[in-house]
Amino acid sequence: MFNSFGNLLKLTTFGESHGIAIGGIIDGFPAGLKVDFKAIQQELDRRKPGQSAIVTQRKEPDTVTFLSGIFDGKTTGASIGFQIKNTNQKSKDYNHNTTIYRPSHADFTYDKKYGIRDYKGGGRTSARETANWVVAGALAKQLIAHIKINAFTSSVGAVFVDKPYQKLDFSKTEDSIVRCPDKVSAEKMIQRIKEIKKEGNTIGGTITCVAQNVPIGLGEPIFNKLHAELGKAMLSINAVKGFEFGSGFCGAKMKGSEHNDLFNTDGSTQSNLSGGIQGGISNGMDIYFRVAFKPVATIMQNQPTINSDGEATEIQGKGRHDPCVVPRAVPIVEALTALVLADFYLLNKTRKIS
Amino acid sequence: MFNSFGNLLKLTTFGESHGIAIGGIIDGFPAGLKVDFKAIQQELDRRKPGQSAIVTQRKEPDTVTFLSGIFDGKTTGASIGFQIKNTNQKSKDYNHNTTIYRPSHADFTYDKKYGIRDYKGGGRTSARETANWVVAGALAKQLIAHIKINAFTSSVGAVFVDKPYQKLDFSKTEDSIVRCPDKVSAEKMIQRIKEIKKEGNTIGGTITCVAQNVPIGLGEPIFNKLHAELGKAMLSINAVKGFEFGSGFCGAKMKGSEHNDLFNTDGSTQSNLSGGIQGGISNGMDIYFRVAFKPVATIMQNQPTINSDGEATEIQGKGRHDPCVVPRAVPIVEALTALVLADFYLLNKTRKIS
Amino acid sequence: MFNSFGNLLKLTTFGESHGIAIGGIIDGFPAGLKVDFKAIQQELDRRKPGQSAIVTQRKEPDTVTFLSGIFDGKTTGASIGFQIKNTNQKSKDYNHNTTIYRPSHADFTYDKKYGIRDYKGGGRTSARETANWVVAGALAKQLIAHIKINAFTSSVGAVFVDKPYQKLDFSKTEDSIVRCPDKVSAEKMIQRIKEIKKEGNTIGGTITCVAQNVPIGLGEPIFNKLHAELGKAMLSINAVKGFEFGSGFCGAKMKGSEHNDLFNTDGSTQSNLSGGIQGGISNGMDIYFRVAFKPVATIMQNQPTINSDGEATEIQGKGRHDPCVVPRAVPIVEALTALVLADFYLLNKTRKIS
Amino acid sequence: MFNSFGNLLKLTTFGESHGIAIGGIIDGFPAGLKVDFKAIQQELDRRKPGQSAIVTQRKEPDTVTFLSGIFDGKTTGASIGFQIKNTNQKSKDYNHNTTIYRPSHADFTYDKKYGIRDYKGGGRTSARETANWVVAGALAKQLIAHIKINAFTSSVGAVFVDKPYQKLDFSKTEDSIVRCPDKVSAEKMIQRIKEIKKEGNTIGGTITCVAQNVPIGLGEPIFNKLHAELGKAMLSINAVKGFEFGSGFCGAKMKGSEHNDLFNTDGSTQSNLSGGIQGGISNGMDIYFRVAFKPVATIMQNQPTINSDGEATEIQGKGRHDPCVVPRAVPIVEALTALVLADFYLLNKTRKIS
Repeated sequence: MFNSFGNLLKLTTFGESHGIAIGGIIDGFPAGLKVDFKAIQQELDRRKPGQSAIVTQRKEPDTVTFLSGIFDGKTTGASIGFQIKNTNQKSKDYNHNTTIYRPSHADFTYDKKYGIRDYKGGGRTSARETANWVVAGALAKQLIAHIKINAFTSSVGAVFVDKPYQKLDFSKTEDSIVRCPDKVSAEKMIQRIKEIKKEGNTIGGTITCVAQNVPIGLGEPIFNKLHAELGKAMLSINAVKGFEFGSGFCGAKMKGSEHNDLFNTDGSTQSNLSGGIQGGISNGMDIYFRVAFKPVATIMQNQPTINSDGEATEIQGKGRHDPCVVPRAVPIVEALTALVLADFYLLNKTRKIS
Repeated sequence: MFNSFGNLLKLTTFGESHGIAIGGIIDGFPAGLKVDFKAIQQELDRRKPGQSAIVTQRKEPDTVTFLSGIFDGKTTGASIGFQIKNTNQKSKDYNHNTTIYRPSHADFTYDKKYGIRDYKGGGRTSARETANWVVAGALAKQLIAHIKINAFTSSVGAVFVDKPYQKLDFSKTEDSIVRCPDKVSAEKMIQRIKEIKKEGNTIGGTITCVAQNVPIGLGEPIFNKLHAELGKAMLSINAVKGFEFGSGFCGAKMKGSEHNDLFNTDGSTQSNLSGGIQGGISNGMDIYFRVAFKPVATIMQNQPTINSDGEATEIQGKGRHDPCVVPRAVPIVEALTALVLADFYLLNKTRKIS
Repeated sequence: MFNSFGNLLKLTTFGESHGIAIGGIIDGFPAGLKVDFKAIQQELDRRKPGQSAIVTQRKEPDTVTFLSGIFDGKTTGASIGFQIKNTNQKSKDYNHNTTIYRPSHADFTYDKKYGIRDYKGGGRTSARETANWVVAGALAKQLIAHIKINAFTSSVGAVFVDKPYQKLDFSKTEDSIVRCPDKVSAEKMIQRIKEIKKEGNTIGGTITCVAQNVPIGLGEPIFNKLHAELGKAMLSINAVKGFEFGSGFCGAKMKGSEHNDLFNTDGSTQSNLSGGIQGGISNGMDIYFRVAFKPVATIMQNQPTINSDGEATEIQGKGRHDPCVVPRAVPIVEALTALVLADFYLLNKTRKIS
Repeated sequence: MFNSFGNLLKLTTFGESHGIAIGGIIDGFPAGLKVDFKAIQQELDRRKPGQSAIVTQRKEPDTVTFLSGIFDGKTTGASIGFQIKNTNQKSKDYNHNTTIYRPSHADFTYDKKYGIRDYKGGGRTSARETANWVVAGALAKQLIAHIKINAFTSSVGAVFVDKPYQKLDFSKTEDSIVRCPDKVSAEKMIQRIKEIKKEGNTIGGTITCVAQNVPIGLGEPIFNKLHAELGKAMLSINAVKGFEFGSGFCGAKMKGSEHNDLFNTDGSTQSNLSGGIQGGISNGMDIYFRVAFKPVATIMQNQPTINSDGEATEIQGKGRHDPCVVPRAVPIVEALTALVLADFYLLNKTRKIS
């Protein structure tokens, strides 16, 4: 619990935004995988700050060092320790937060819960933590290389991709800095984020994720349903407010006769409102889901607030923050998806006698 | 994993729809609670089949027997075993399902995953399992009696309650068979379900749940966020397709300046788009979330489908099923909410030195 | 934790000595095993009270009923619920224990820890609980049928089997009521227990367990070592005071040059002081270990003691108890060994890419 | 599982003997503890190589760096990441082990299990890992500072301390390099180790550990008994072959009338053959147990063995190793004891309503 994720394949993490380093331990990873280190770094680069004009201008190289569990380039079955040094902590940017509670941040709840709070850069609440997840997810992707996981920005504010994902070419996702494979929508999204940034404001958005070539049988009934673990994973990402898979909230307006996915004789289905999961178990169709992100709480505008003594004060908008979290969250969504699927892939090896 | 839910307060369950009994074990329940058995049965009665004209007409008394962990009417700290006998299994209704895969059911995935399937009444996939959760949840409610948990039907198909929850009187929820505290909406919903039933069809809907008087500090950062556990719990319920809390998917369209909850000097907030949770930890404001249910897959219409040999066939609509799962799911949503909150309530006793 | 044992294959139990029933849930059991129900009942019969002149004369049939997870005689992958009804609770035998703390029992610690105690027959502390373990262990044995697990009584008080286990014929274990395959020692042990019983006293003993045909590779390094899990399992049995494997405490007196097991070219070893486990992982040689049981605390003699008010009083020796726990503990030791090995057998399917 | 230990207070570790660093993450540690860093380093110094003439002459400073979870000198409730750099890896000492299986080491089992093995210095199987445990244990000691934990060397080969622990002055333990508080025995032990070292041999021994001032009520019944967790912890230490608590294996020879601990009216007991634990729960008396260590498998003598191709070969005795592991294992035993007790101390806060 607390700082661990997964059942058989388990990631445990540590680290604060402005400490020496963040990092983690990946446990339960099978032995014998030839690690593609470059692919891991590429995923980190997709998440890193400063990568484009529409994200925070902080510069952090985010280089991961593996400390154990890999020998001669292969996983050994031992726990894989890794760390990412913190190199660019402008703590002075955050000094004003020592006793001030930022609106819609976790300053207040941490202080009340723990009686102490690392206020530098948000401490443990910083989304910097998600770099750890990207490392682990990148390794998980290599374990289940046959499964294709593609996330993309499906909306920014009121700008939505107006096509079903089947009409999109995922190979184009990285072509746009907003990570939307639909060129027209991507440009509108970028435009919108730039406007918002100019206002000193932030904006929310959604990410859609599609997992293809998922073998039939991943997921466990009752309290380990595939979609429940995916949902939990997504709701663990900072700023996430909602999760839906398959027909999602739209499905709640439908009739059974419209919603049922009729079978083809090969076991595939004609429609896929189920989102690739039946009874918590993958059915071989595409798994797809959508994740809602609220606008980043740190805005470049002054806001009234209180301090830890309950006195009214004002917080000033400064520092370097993302006007929209969504473009950088795309690799995070993919990473967690990979962790969930890899965990169930391992579990599934034990569910039938052979 | 698999059939267990919770960290410190853990529910493990068993049982198939048409077996001898279903039941569970509640572990980690603190000693010394005087159990209100009547309140537990009342919750079961809210979930049971046959309770009104708009739910399945199966009749099952759903009486729980506690087998251990309670002595002289009080919990002893030992594991609490309980069971609910299955009394009304019309297996012949299901005989036609022996080899037929019902559309949008888990028949196909279970068969492929396990190589064997208890086809009677859906076996382990039956929502009958949720009676176990209601028992455990009713006990959990008694442990955190200071917290008020109220779920209600917020939509059936296109019929939505068009008021914020703050305008509703939760004491009226049980007055309507659809479990909607808004009388006008409730009547429309009931009307809609009756139409749908007449068609031999089913319809989806949503449930909104509100937890009030939650102490500040429940929830754990990173991978045990309060809303992530709530989301996982809700996504474990049969037919659920989506979960959102606070501003939810609407929040994804908003700007930071609109979305931020400004503080009052007492630490409460002027708005509550956060939904009572900041950084995964309760902030003392109301926790509210919404759960989307797809229409029940079993409809009273014939549908083309396949059998386990991959041959095209037809499934006939018969049996006794719910035209809309939502009214009976209200106590289930409350039960799981209680389990999550009680678990975090216990965990929170250990997070600060004293 | 608390009432659960195992990682992937998990047993969770409930039940008090004088409640309605005891029982459990076996989770993570793979689908597709044809269950030999008779073999399970036979294991229960080896543990049951009243089976011979040297054990407690309570009569309880100890019949297990499976409630779920088995369909058409095969496991389905769903959780397996089971229960054993309590049929012969002479609660009046225990009435004197309402407030009296029995020496070297858990009455005092339970009362202090939980503030409440089910005093009937020891409640949750009763060794009756171990019947649950025997059920689960008997199923686990069937999952790893290629592994041969044989436990036997290796000492009663000062009467020791004076041969290495390799010289014993395990097929003779059940021929003696004390469960010692060495006929001469068995007779001395039985004689000793009868004397002790006549005194109204009890006596300790040891059980040796041997697991043969264990595949190489079971067990996980660091905190899941095969012998550490076996040790934990054995130390969970009521009355156990010690555990040693391979050379055990004798090994602590030896030199490295004497103790090292030299290899044969086929990877087997010439000696086996390691007890079949190297670095926490099975090496294919016989796994053997020894478990120490203290004398049963309930004796048929009056003893001074205190009550829950801290007043000096006397406890009278009556009721029906085992003069020596060891003969009935043999199937319990085997059951837990089977659970540990089956759990690691499943885990091992996930530790190498394939 | 695998590389994690503990329930609420959980240590997860990584690291190989000759990698960049070893380290771990401590999760579930309560917020608000003022950390005594010096005390942690002192514990590490008690374990470190090169500290005296009777241990390995490798020199490693073993300096721990905390990377997270501590702010302004206090724990924050966040996960505590730490690492210890590896500074003195003479990999060439181990080059001969590339393909050779050392007798009574884990080379063979790791190779067979994982298909790959980090052969440098034993990789993950190295006792270097225990430095991680000492760090975590030193922190745990500070959390339960009221409990006094004292381990000491109670035998080396055939040299035993011939006094009950009550006659020993634990403040003298650190006065002798063998960590035996009885001066006469200590000198004999040191003498014995020096002889053994001169032979190029190794020798086993035992450690006794005593925990005093333990509050009543730590430990959980059934599968989380205090002594079972202690046993599991001790059996996780490299080279351990046995564990006994209280009367231990001697208890197996006794009668109930001799073994029962009669109560004093204050709830303490006149004797303490129970070893401070009844029914898995601490009863307020001293907890004491004994741990058996085999002789270190690496000896400075040539031994016949096989290589990974199953060919007979010889292993040469060189490198720098401990002639007796026991003196350096004393702080390890204490560290794990502290982790177990601190974990149960936290758990116990949740077991009774208040």
